[in-house]
Amino acid sequence: MSDDVSRGLSRRRFFGLAGAGTAGVLAAGAAGGAIGRATAEVPPAGGAADTTGAVPFTGAHQAGIVTPAQDRLHFVAFDVVTDDRAELVEMLQAWTAAARRMTAGQDAGEVGAVGGGPYDVPDDTGEAMDLPAAGLTLTVGFGPTLFATADGVDRFGLADRRPGPLTELPAFPGDALDPAISGGDLCVQACANDPQVAVHAVRNLIRLGAGVVSVRWSQLGFGRTSSTSSAQATPRNLFGFKDGTDNLKAENTSAIEKFVWVTDGDPGADWLAGGSYLVTRRIRMRIEPWDTSTLAEQEQTIGRTKKAGAPLGQRGEFDPVDFTAQVDGEFAIPQTSHVFLAHPTNSGTAILRRGYSFVDGSDGLGRLDAGLFFIAYQRNPETGFTQVQRNLRTDAMNEYVQHTSSAVFACPPGVTGDDDWWGRALFS
Amino acid sequence: MSDDVSRGLSRRRFFGLAGAGTAGVLAAGAAGGAIGRATAEVPPAGGAADTTGAVPFTGAHQAGIVTPAQDRLHFVAFDVVTDDRAELVEMLQAWTAAARRMTAGQDAGEVGAVGGGPYDVPDDTGEAMDLPAAGLTLTVGFGPTLFATADGVDRFGLADRRPGPLTELPAFPGDALDPAISGGDLCVQACANDPQVAVHAVRNLIRLGAGVVSVRWSQLGFGRTSSTSSAQATPRNLFGFKDGTDNLKAENTSAIEKFVWVTDGDPGADWLAGGSYLVTRRIRMRIEPWDTSTLAEQEQTIGRTKKAGAPLGQRGEFDPVDFTAQVDGEFAIPQTSHVFLAHPTNSGTAILRRGYSFVDGSDGLGRLDAGLFFIAYQRNPETGFTQVQRNLRTDAMNEYVQHTSSAVFACPPGVTGDDDWWGRALFS
Repeated sequence: MSDDVSRGLSRRRFFGLAGAGTAGVLAAGAAGGAIGRATAEVPPAGGAADTTGAVPFTGAHQAGIVTPAQDRLHFVAFDVVTDDRAELVEMLQAWTAAARRMTAGQDAGEVGAVGGGPYDVPDDTGEAMDLPAAGLTLTVGFGPTLFATADGVDRFGLADRRPGPLTELPAFPGDALDPAISGGDLCVQACANDPQVAVHAVRNLIRLGAGVVSVRWSQLGFGRTSSTSSAQATPRNLFGFKDGTDNLKAENTSAIEKFVWVTDGDPGADWLAGGSYLVTRRIRMRIEPWDTSTLAEQEQTIGRTKKAGAPLGQRGEFDPVDFTAQVDGEFAIPQTSHVFLAHPTNSGTAILRRGYSFVDGSDGLGRLDAGLFFIAYQRNPETGFTQVQRNLRTDAMNEYVQHTSSAVFACPPGVTGDDDWWGRALFS
Repeated sequence: MSDDVSRGLSRRRFFGLAGAGTAGVLAAGAAGGAIGRATAEVPPAGGAADTTGAVPFTGAHQAGIVTPAQDRLHFVAFDVVTDDRAELVEMLQAWTAAARRMTAGQDAGEVGAVGGGPYDVPDDTGEAMDLPAAGLTLTVGFGPTLFATADGVDRFGLADRRPGPLTELPAFPGDALDPAISGGDLCVQACANDPQVAVHAVRNLIRLGAGVVSVRWSQLGFGRTSSTSSAQATPRNLFGFKDGTDNLKAENTSAIEKFVWVTDGDPGADWLAGGSYLVTRRIRMRIEPWDTSTLAEQEQTIGRTKKAGAPLGQRGEFDPVDFTAQVDGEFAIPQTSHVFLAHPTNSGTAILRRGYSFVDGSDGLGRLDAGLFFIAYQRNPETGFTQVQRNLRTDAMNEYVQHTSSAVFACPPGVTGDDDWWGRALFS
C-alpha cells in the first residue's frame, strides 16, 4: 500500500478497504465487534476538528516537531544493550517499518495482533486494534552516549560522526537531576490525541527492540502546554497560565528555518541536515506553594495576566510584549518575570517548545509529583535551550520549579522513500 | 444559581450566561482570549457523542459509580492529619461545595482563579479555566482507618459507626502490596473525559484540604478498561483484549440494586444506604512476557478471542458464555481461564468494575511500569471483590499480573439538597 493510499486512513478504514479487495476475512472482522470505539469517535464530516486522522510519516523533516502539538505524550529513552552495530541497524529498520504502519493507523506488523497461527506470537500487541491513527507521530533521536567510546572502544563506530553540539548540557543553578531518569542512547517521542495510541506505539517499539535496547526511563504527559501552530489555541500549564503564546509556530517558516532545522554547513550536517536537536527537562512544579500565592505574585512571576494571558500592561493575549511599558513608575513586566527573561527579545534566541503536563502520583510527603515535561527543538542546543536557560538564573519562577531530569538528542531528518529508515545517513 | 440552571453548562457557557445578566465583566472576559480551547472542542449539535457536558452532581447515589465510565481518571487517597472532628466536617462541606461547582464546569470557588483582588489568593488554580465540564464526576469514600481508634482514642468518634464489611481486605496469594500506596482515610475518584479536568478537580480539593488532609497516594489512569453502560463500546486493556463485556451495566437495574448499592437492613445502612463499597487494586501487568506469548496462550489465558472478544467457541463478543461447550474433547473455555473463574456463573457473585489502564514510566529494569488500576463497586466487599478474587487463585492470568496496592472505602449515598454535604449522615 502506497503512502498516498494509507495516509489519513484509520485502522478501521484500512481494514474495510483491505477487506474489499481481499478474501473478505478482514472485512468480516471489521463488520464484527472490533470497530465500535473507532466508529463512535470519528467526528462527522465538516464537524469538529478531526483529531483522529493520520499525520504523514515521510517527509524532509520528521513529523512530531513542527506538527501541531497533539494532546498526549509518551516519551521513552533507551539504553542500547547490544554492542553489535548490525543488530542496532536492523532494529532501526524494523522500527521505521513499524512506525510507518502505526502512524497510518495500522498494526505494528503485517500479521497484526490476531493474524498468523494460534501458536505464533502476534506482531502487534492489540490494544489499539479498534482505534484510529489519532494523529500519532513518532520522532526518534540519538543521544551523545551512542557516539561515545566505552572502555576505549568506539561503541558503534560513530565517534567521528558526533556533531560538536551533541554533548551533555551544562549544569544549571538549582538542578536536581536524577541520573536514572536522565540521558539515554536513543529516544522516541510518541505524540497522539489518544494516550492509548501513543502508549501502544511505544510499547510495540520496545517489543521490537528486545535484546537490542532496554527502556532507560519513560514519561507520560497528559496535557500539551504549548502550541506549535498559529491555528491552535494556547493551552494552560499547571500554574493555570496560558503557555506558549509567543512560541515559535510552524507557520513562521523563516524563524523555523533559522532556529529549528540543522542546515548544510552546520556541524554534522552530512547526516543531520533537516534534523533538529531535542532537549527534554522534567520540571517538577511546586504546586502547593504556588496555590497559596496571591494572584499578583503569580502574574508578576509569569509576566502575563492569568485569565487572558496578556502581557502585563496589555489587554489581549497576542498584544505585543512591551518591555519598556511602565505602570506607576515601575516596569509593567518585571525584569525577573519568566516572560521577560525567556522572551527572544531578551534571551537573544528562540526555541520550539512542545512540552506536556504530567502528574506522576504523589511524592510520599503529601504533595503531588506534578509539573511540566519540557521538550524543545532547536538548531543547536548551545544557542538554543542552554542560552535561554542561562538567562533564567534570576527568574522569579525558579522558586516554584525544580529540574529533575535532563536529556539531549540529535533527531535525524525525515524518512523519505519506501526503503529509507531512521538514521540511514548516520549509519551508512 | 440552581442545580437545574447549572446542570449541563460548561464554564464557558456559564460565563456567557452570567455575563449577560451581570455587569458585563465576565462577559467581556469570556469574549476575550479565555475561551479558545473550549470553543474548539465543543462538538456540533447532533454530531459526535458529547463528552464535554456536565454530569449531575446530586442524586440518590453518588455520580461516578454507574455513570457511563469516562475516559480518564485521577484517583487520590488521603490521610487525615488533624484530630479535630469539626475541621474534618468543615472540609467535607467545603469539598462538597467545590465539587458541586466543578462538576458543573465552574471554578472551585466563587471568586475563581482571577477574581478577588490582586493580593488575594485565588480560590481556583485556573488550569481548567477554558475547559468544559468534560463529564467530570467526583466520588468520595471513607476508609476503615477513619473509624479506628489510635492510641486508645476514637479518632473522630466514629468507631461505633463502622459497618462490619468496612475492614481491610484479606491477604491473597501473590499479593505484593506496597503499604505506601495502599489504604487511606479518605479517597476521591475523579473521572472525566479530559485528564486536565480530572487533575484540576483533585488538585483543588487538595488545596481546600490543606492542614486537614495530606495526600497519601495518587494514581492517574489514561484508558478506561470497562464499560458501565450498555451504550458504551467495550474498550481494550493493556493485554490487548476487550475488557468488561460481561460487566454489570447501569441499565441492568435489578442487578445493580442487588450487587452494588447498600440497602436498608445492610450493616451501616443508617448512613450508608444508597452508597457502595469501593475496592481499588493497582495491578501491575507483566507486559514483556505477555508480548512474547502466542495468540493461543493469550486467548486460553483470557478465555475469549483477542479480536472479537468472543467467548472461546463462540463468534461474537456478546454471544453467551457457555462453560459446557467442548472443542476436540476439551472445554472451549479452559477452567483456568480468567473468564471462567471470574464469571458470575462460577464466582457466584458480581461486581461493578470501573478500572483504568496506567503507565507510570518504567521500573529501572528496562520494563514499563504499566497495568490496570482496578476499581470495583459492590454492596459488600466480602461477597464482592473478595469472593471473586478468592476464586481466581488458579487463574492462568496470575502469571502475568501482580497486585501492588490495595484499598477499600465506603462511599456514602449521593448529596441531595442544596445544603447537603458528603458524609452528613455519618457525622450527624
